[in-house]
Amino acid sequence: MTPSRSATTTDPSDAERVIRETISRVIAGVNTLSDSGPGWTRPSYSDLESKAHALIEKEALALGLEVSRDAAGNLFARLAGQDRTAPALFTGSHLDTVSQGGAYDGQAGVAGAMALIAAFRAGNVLPPMDIVLTVTRAEESVWFPVSYIGSRAYLGKLTAEELDAKRVDTGQSLAAHMCSQGYDPEAVIATKAPDPAQFLEFHIEQGPVLHAAGEAYGLVTAIRGGLRYRSARITGQWAHSGGTPRADRADAVVAFSDLVLAMDRIWGEMQEAGDDLTVTFGRVDAATSAHAMAKVAGELEFCVDLRSTDLSVLERADSHLKTEIARIESERSGIAFSLGAQSRSRPATLSRPMAERIARGAARFGEAPRRMSSGGGHDAAAFAVAGWDSVMVFVRNWNGSHCPEEGMNEADLVRAVMAVHAALGNDWQP
Amino acid sequence: MTPSRSATTTDPSDAERVIRETISRVIAGVNTLSDSGPGWTRPSYSDLESKAHALIEKEALALGLEVSRDAAGNLFARLAGQDRTAPALFTGSHLDTVSQGGAYDGQAGVAGAMALIAAFRAGNVLPPMDIVLTVTRAEESVWFPVSYIGSRAYLGKLTAEELDAKRVDTGQSLAAHMCSQGYDPEAVIATKAPDPAQFLEFHIEQGPVLHAAGEAYGLVTAIRGGLRYRSARITGQWAHSGGTPRADRADAVVAFSDLVLAMDRIWGEMQEAGDDLTVTFGRVDAATSAHAMAKVAGELEFCVDLRSTDLSVLERADSHLKTEIARIESERSGIAFSLGAQSRSRPATLSRPMAERIARGAARFGEAPRRMSSGGGHDAAAFAVAGWDSVMVFVRNWNGSHCPEEGMNEADLVRAVMAVHAALGNDWQP
Repeated sequence: MTPSRSATTTDPSDAERVIRETISRVIAGVNTLSDSGPGWTRPSYSDLESKAHALIEKEALALGLEVSRDAAGNLFARLAGQDRTAPALFTGSHLDTVSQGGAYDGQAGVAGAMALIAAFRAGNVLPPMDIVLTVTRAEESVWFPVSYIGSRAYLGKLTAEELDAKRVDTGQSLAAHMCSQGYDPEAVIATKAPDPAQFLEFHIEQGPVLHAAGEAYGLVTAIRGGLRYRSARITGQWAHSGGTPRADRADAVVAFSDLVLAMDRIWGEMQEAGDDLTVTFGRVDAATSAHAMAKVAGELEFCVDLRSTDLSVLERADSHLKTEIARIESERSGIAFSLGAQSRSRPATLSRPMAERIARGAARFGEAPRRMSSGGGHDAAAFAVAGWDSVMVFVRNWNGSHCPEEGMNEADLVRAVMAVHAALGNDWQP
Repeated sequence: MTPSRSATTTDPSDAERVIRETISRVIAGVNTLSDSGPGWTRPSYSDLESKAHALIEKEALALGLEVSRDAAGNLFARLAGQDRTAPALFTGSHLDTVSQGGAYDGQAGVAGAMALIAAFRAGNVLPPMDIVLTVTRAEESVWFPVSYIGSRAYLGKLTAEELDAKRVDTGQSLAAHMCSQGYDPEAVIATKAPDPAQFLEFHIEQGPVLHAAGEAYGLVTAIRGGLRYRSARITGQWAHSGGTPRADRADAVVAFSDLVLAMDRIWGEMQEAGDDLTVTFGRVDAATSAHAMAKVAGELEFCVDLRSTDLSVLERADSHLKTEIARIESERSGIAFSLGAQSRSRPATLSRPMAERIARGAARFGEAPRRMSSGGGHDAAAFAVAGWDSVMVFVRNWNGSHCPEEGMNEADLVRAVMAVHAALGNDWQP
């Protein structure tokens, strides 16, 4: 039987069932693959990440898609569309997780993309252009101090220097980890940028905005970039807790607390003035074998993560950070900060036209998703920065992110995929 | 040859040489026994602590002293004096260390006591009363959450509940550790308090006061007690660093910083008002596998250590701590503190008459040691609280305490021991 040339002939209730079943099966399948809990742990370029990719490949082959991998191990599975010469719609996400992460970050985007394609297959309908299920590697930058590794490798942006970055747990380089999973770092370096096409990523919202508003999904038109110091350190003077007078102390814990409260105050002021910003000290280590209840801390290590949709805001926040550090060093004798290496990811502007088209699909179900910013970085940012038309669909999540408790109702993701499916049957091409 | 009945017949230059050589040999010998560095680590009731005791026993036997051990493994080595019925002078310290501690804390006190006895032996002179070299076990309360374990065991004060305390690194009970070193926790519980006698402890100053004043040693007439929470915890809400607005956060790191700065301010105010106090947050752990650069911290563990010579000041500082915690919990939605178990050591008043006698010995060398308080807790506090006349001699230290960098000039300890030696040849008995 020749596939119909119009998506509108798919029975919406059939599509909904296929989307629901695919989402449920894919998420459950991927989540059988994890290091010990709590939560789910699939490090970037680990055997577990590779196994998750293999599971998706199997699903894609069962749908009759054309499967390929690039030199970095990104997985692509192509469904032919009506116009094979039009820029394809790449859609997907990643399958690595932070340590002790949740059940949905990444997984839900791969499942949503697979469900979108499955709905076309089940309806025996051709989408207007090729749709390419895109499963990236190594999106979670907690493992290697490099942003969007897989998608930037595909886009020909990864540098030799970045391939030298060490994974925080193993100490092995990104290149070595790629090799150990059967991929080719030299070919990654030689990768030329592909012609820009379109990219769409379903993802749980990593904040509470949609949940608080009682909305199932929203359309993301900007992604915050980051400016980070992953291995900052304070040195002071080790001293006896009871024997050292207040005036004679150089206490790394007190100096750190001073910086945290100062930056929290500055964040409040900048936000008040209309700046888009987050400030986070997510990791604090004054708990080595040298630290003890009866000792004034002479050392402390910490991370700081600044994020904004606006590069100039990031620069200003970074400048405030350095000014506060200088103040603390001058006020607190014996205290010295070392911020260590800075890493960055660029803020990205996504495609408002793509968001408009999805909104028109949503309107067919009486839904009017809000436009919003993403606080977290996502592969969609890498595609947007590389000149692709790129958009994200956020699904509400009521229980934090990058944690075992992430909460997503699969029915919300079904509604988001239905909206995209309808949009593609509508008037997708600009 | 019959020992002379007068200590004054010892040639001071001979005594000084014996004291200097003994101090140097004992400190160097004990410091060959340590876990891997930096610094020196001999945990309480470890094999290393037992080996250090064995080394001192060998020295004591070589001096012809009468050696014994009690049920807790404290080591005693007695030199007979002129009046065998007078209350003996017990003198010594401990040989365990904090993790990655220094070369002098404890060691110097044992070496000084040994040197004092060696000087009498070398001069073939009897001290006015018996002198008992006293090497306690387990003084450093970082290992077990119990203060002055060895000395309180000897004094008949250790409770069955305290014997159940777990060592922080091994998780094994104090009783189990005593057994593993060949001692008898049941006999410790049954120990009756001995008749009070006199106790003298040489120790490095754990603060910078003597060093700053350019004084070699001082006489301690009070010891701060402590009020501690060793396993306090803050719970907040794990969240994505970039995706969670400021108003929606329950950030354990920010809440902790708030408490640290508030207590630092209160400490300043109480000190201004004349209260004797130290406030220390020496260990902060937001560095578990669940913590990451890209996550708002949903948990943080910490220690807090309050010290004062005045019990009522400790109670007021503790009350301030709880008031600040209540304020932070009410101001910061989603934040909850749990202080966990409180442990205490009592402030102790030492013997001014003993200090006077030592000062008279010091005067023979033209020295006038200051009277001062001890910020750190010491075995001398346990003896004082048990009703013994107890005193400490502090030796200047220019480089912090409970750290590998502790600095002590052995010549300063020689001067301190010389002063005590002279005092005992003078008019020691009240």
